[in-house]
Amino acid sequence: MWSVDEHLDDILATVRPLEPIVLQLLDAQGCVLVEDVTVPVSLPPFDNSSMDGYAVRVADVAGAGEEFPAVLTVIGDVAAGQGEQPTVGAGEAARIMTGAPLPPGAEAVVPVEWTDGGLGEGPAAGMRAHSTAPEGASGEVRVYRPAEARAHVRDRGSDVRAGDRALAAGTILGPPQIALLAAIGRGTVKVRPRPRVVVLSTGSELIQPGEELAPGQIFDSNSFALTAAARDAGAIAYRVGAVTDDVEVLRSTIEDQLIRADLVVTTGGVSVGAYDVVKEALDSIGDPDDDEGLGAGGGVDFRKLAMQPGKPQGFGAIGPDHTPLLALPGNPVSSYVSFEIFVRPAVRALMGLSDLHRTTVRARLTADGALTSPSGRRQFLRGRHDADAGTVTPVGGSGSHLVAALAQADALIVVPEATTSVEPGTEVEVVLLG
Amino acid sequence: MWSVDEHLDDILATVRPLEPIVLQLLDAQGCVLVEDVTVPVSLPPFDNSSMDGYAVRVADVAGAGEEFPAVLTVIGDVAAGQGEQPTVGAGEAARIMTGAPLPPGAEAVVPVEWTDGGLGEGPAAGMRAHSTAPEGASGEVRVYRPAEARAHVRDRGSDVRAGDRALAAGTILGPPQIALLAAIGRGTVKVRPRPRVVVLSTGSELIQPGEELAPGQIFDSNSFALTAAARDAGAIAYRVGAVTDDVEVLRSTIEDQLIRADLVVTTGGVSVGAYDVVKEALDSIGDPDDDEGLGAGGGVDFRKLAMQPGKPQGFGAIGPDHTPLLALPGNPVSSYVSFEIFVRPAVRALMGLSDLHRTTVRARLTADGALTSPSGRRQFLRGRHDADAGTVTPVGGSGSHLVAALAQADALIVVPEATTSVEPGTEVEVVLLG
Repeated sequence: MWSVDEHLDDILATVRPLEPIVLQLLDAQGCVLVEDVTVPVSLPPFDNSSMDGYAVRVADVAGAGEEFPAVLTVIGDVAAGQGEQPTVGAGEAARIMTGAPLPPGAEAVVPVEWTDGGLGEGPAAGMRAHSTAPEGASGEVRVYRPAEARAHVRDRGSDVRAGDRALAAGTILGPPQIALLAAIGRGTVKVRPRPRVVVLSTGSELIQPGEELAPGQIFDSNSFALTAAARDAGAIAYRVGAVTDDVEVLRSTIEDQLIRADLVVTTGGVSVGAYDVVKEALDSIGDPDDDEGLGAGGGVDFRKLAMQPGKPQGFGAIGPDHTPLLALPGNPVSSYVSFEIFVRPAVRALMGLSDLHRTTVRARLTADGALTSPSGRRQFLRGRHDADAGTVTPVGGSGSHLVAALAQADALIVVPEATTSVEPGTEVEVVLLG
Repeated sequence: MWSVDEHLDDILATVRPLEPIVLQLLDAQGCVLVEDVTVPVSLPPFDNSSMDGYAVRVADVAGAGEEFPAVLTVIGDVAAGQGEQPTVGAGEAARIMTGAPLPPGAEAVVPVEWTDGGLGEGPAAGMRAHSTAPEGASGEVRVYRPAEARAHVRDRGSDVRAGDRALAAGTILGPPQIALLAAIGRGTVKVRPRPRVVVLSTGSELIQPGEELAPGQIFDSNSFALTAAARDAGAIAYRVGAVTDDVEVLRSTIEDQLIRADLVVTTGGVSVGAYDVVKEALDSIGDPDDDEGLGAGGGVDFRKLAMQPGKPQGFGAIGPDHTPLLALPGNPVSSYVSFEIFVRPAVRALMGLSDLHRTTVRARLTADGALTSPSGRRQFLRGRHDADAGTVTPVGGSGSHLVAALAQADALIVVPEATTSVEPGTEVEVVLLG
């Protein structure tokens, strides 16, 4: 018997972060940066206006007021993106837009609201559009307030300076980090890619949802649930349909899939039955003479875990690239819980994330009676967590086929190995799902 | 001046959830179900074994023990997915696999570990693979323990019964809900789709990251940041490159994009400047004679909000389908904060979600000195939240061009309209990002 922690430690000791690749910025969303990114050019790259207004010399507007405005000659517009700027001389002003470079000669910007906007009709609310009123770039402007040097000017480099470290290796790239990378001109970035996870379920009884059930058949749900869960964990997930309980079919299916897999997840066929083909196909396939087939990776080890649900588990590395494979049990609840406890951390380790695990909290058990748990096994019961009340309530029973209850759960209640009974009111460990 | 709440209320009163569509199960991940889903066939669909073992009659194993095992004739295998089962008569047992139908005549299952597995060598650890040892489906088996009726049998309908409600309309489809839908045979499901959000930035000064900066130019970061943020909110986001400050180019670009837009988000060009083309192109375009062009939607209203950053904002509906459009200011921090406060809830409203807003908590301000905030404006400062300590610390200043600080933030500190100064140690409202 392996403990949950021993099995997880073994997985995490084996799974290495994927090799970094260079991706387009938006393709790197959610990925982990593997380089320290240095700022190549200061931001802003030039002194620029933080307001729509007029670029002026300080002396020209000193003492200006409502009653005695400064009257300046407008020598043109400075729009954002304009390469050439007019030089602002004594008694002159350039009409300037937010983000436009401060033109030579100018020392400050007065917002348009502090002027008559060139209209001669008292304080203005804004500028008239250049396209409809081009004369606004000439004529006279009355300025009603003085301005200090550098007023409403954003200094070159006031955001970041060339040579600064913009982002450190290890940063997860969310929207604000992508904003910064774009702002400093990075169109591509070196990250660990999202792992490609191939999910396949096994079982001759499985048919595709939407088809007609024949006697003895059930619908394949695991491959859907785990593909969704793998995506949720950050992976690019490929769902392979259910594979029949035939060793050769299974072996060749897995071999075919290796080309696009950073991790293979199977469900079913791992227990002690006579038709447990995953176990049969992958158990001890390590073969020193095999340097191409599945055995090249060294094979998969099948274990019994001190866990409920999820007792039978397989883990190993297969194929020429030693692709990690996790073989989960086939009961829907067992496979989902196993995914949460073992596969999700593996996916996140492949991404190079340091925070591998779901959030765990303590909560007070609310239940009609005591929960029972087998001695020597860590039990994961499905529950609903009420964060405000600090409580958790079991949903459904412990049966590993109870999918309906699983769909009502938002948490797993953890009952430790040594505990066989948990009274209502007891504080328990809770894994929050999603 | 509009308040933040008035503007948001106006947006949410206008934006309606998208019309439902039928999607393949995995395409519906993260979407909101719009139908009550009823269970068409009970789960499990038939009585089946929860263990690998032997299907027996209770009377045949009554009183069985290590010393005096019951010896039964093995009449064959019942594997999962097998349509026809042998009938178990008196003194007989069928070898049965987990999930396989309980064969006629059998009343209980004894796990293989309670038998000799047909090997005659005492208690067995498992079965030998059928492919390598087909004789295991015949011969004799010794059973070392009695079994009660229905032991290790999962009853038909013990998970869900035909006619039960599996999931209620309004449920968000995560992996466990997808598991249940697949398990009951649903290959497709009716949900509100993810909204398609078109993001475009405007400004003649903008160039693509990776290109060479000429004087007066800066890199377009908004379209990258907001595309990433829209995806993060649940949308399918399309990034349109930066559009130059030309009214006709902008108008025709937006018109072209409407075909794939459930929501249009622009940045820049919404203030009082002479080159604010978004405002110029979209202000008051409502035109009763226009039933095809942008004006058909009734136009976009440009407002000043009592907010910092993010004072100038536009909102309205455009084009023949009255597509909602949010016009955000162009400063990177302003546009990102505006997205969080206004666009994200709109995206979630389009998805039909009921929980539209980021989590908000109270935290104690940690800072070197008092924060200042303009009177009459709701200020959103960037901060880092420490959940364990219950504190939040501002990063960077209030300047709306400070992208580097934004990239270090994980929270927004909210300073209410009436507050002009916040002393360290004060409890403040904090919006948690991500």
